[in-house]
Amino acid sequence: MSDDAHRPAVVDLLGALAYGELMAFSELAKDAEMAPTHTDKAAVARLAVAEFQHYEVITARLRELGEDPGAAVAPFVESFDAFHARTRPSTFLEGLVKAYVGDGIAQDFYREISRYVDADTRSLVEAAMSDVGGAEFVVSRVRAAQREDPRLTGRLALWGRRLVGEALTQAQRVAVERDSLTLILVGGAGGPSADLAEIGRMFARITDEHTHRMQRLGLSA
Amino acid sequence: MSDDAHRPAVVDLLGALAYGELMAFSELAKDAEMAPTHTDKAAVARLAVAEFQHYEVITARLRELGEDPGAAVAPFVESFDAFHARTRPSTFLEGLVKAYVGDGIAQDFYREISRYVDADTRSLVEAAMSDVGGAEFVVSRVRAAQREDPRLTGRLALWGRRLVGEALTQAQRVAVERDSLTLILVGGAGGPSADLAEIGRMFARITDEHTHRMQRLGLSA
Repeated sequence: MSDDAHRPAVVDLLGALAYGELMAFSELAKDAEMAPTHTDKAAVARLAVAEFQHYEVITARLRELGEDPGAAVAPFVESFDAFHARTRPSTFLEGLVKAYVGDGIAQDFYREISRYVDADTRSLVEAAMSDVGGAEFVVSRVRAAQREDPRLTGRLALWGRRLVGEALTQAQRVAVERDSLTLILVGGAGGPSADLAEIGRMFARITDEHTHRMQRLGLSA
Repeated sequence: MSDDAHRPAVVDLLGALAYGELMAFSELAKDAEMAPTHTDKAAVARLAVAEFQHYEVITARLRELGEDPGAAVAPFVESFDAFHARTRPSTFLEGLVKAYVGDGIAQDFYREISRYVDADTRSLVEAAMSDVGGAEFVVSRVRAAQREDPRLTGRLALWGRRLVGEALTQAQRVAVERDSLTLILVGGAGGPSADLAEIGRMFARITDEHTHRMQRLGLSA
């Protein structure tokens, strides 16, 4: 962590990750209130708690590095808040799809980017991004709902596309305003870096994974 | 747990406790969103998570007894929801006072009632009711806010009285509709029981404790 450019990039990575997890906690806690059954409510609350536990791990690492978590998350508050304000789920199922699709893209993105940071940060990011059984719950819930009401398929597919669109808008905004994360990729942050072709492949991988996730939900991407 | 009257009483006790914890999780998660700083937000989210962990312990015990948590909480949903709908905090501080005062009364009540149930249930209730450092955080936060704005003292004291009033209204409703919890106290549920004088002393203890809690917050009860 001695490199002058590497450290702020890692702090930004952890800050973005931490705020994302804290917001995911809040959003899932709200989704739990829309749950049609007690079992669903508890299951979604459990997912919210898992996100908060990731938040705790990431902020503990920030503190270990001598960084204030509040300062580290600050650059990302506006864009994450904007994303959530523009993608407020109006039904329990929209909330589940958002959690699954949003978490999935975030996981892929952070895993890709963590290939270019130090080993300690990388293993922390991997751990924080581990799935806690939520994916299976969401897939079975969303598929069952479509069997009961086939009209949901088109509506939820549209919702999935809207989520990706908004996520890309905000990601671009972060990339423009905050070049440290971009520098990780293009080699300005010290350590290994990706060339342009590799960045292209990275986005292709993330897009592919998103398509697979939508398919697992029984939806077209 | 062989006694025919004792078992439904214990299931009701655990059901009420479980739903109370799940609602506390939801409410605190919402309060976290009103937090003025990132540190406050994380601190309140942490309290929410602790409540959910209590919920998990209690529902695990219900399952161990062969009971469905959804069925066990059902009799209490309406009154708990009504309490929360009528005591929606409009500021971060009102949320903190509600969590502290509400949790405090609930803790006292469940501890009192658990003296009359089997030892396993009793130690579970004790563990689920353990404070997780939230009290200290709330007290220091509410006191600091009053130092900054002394007008808060009167307003928050009024809010505390409203909370107790609504809690008593809903508790009475549960007692009328669901006599199993009352039976625990008056000896209709097998095991040791309280006489009328002891029930009077119990309510006196709960009221005293509430007054002390308000004093700790710098508020009159």
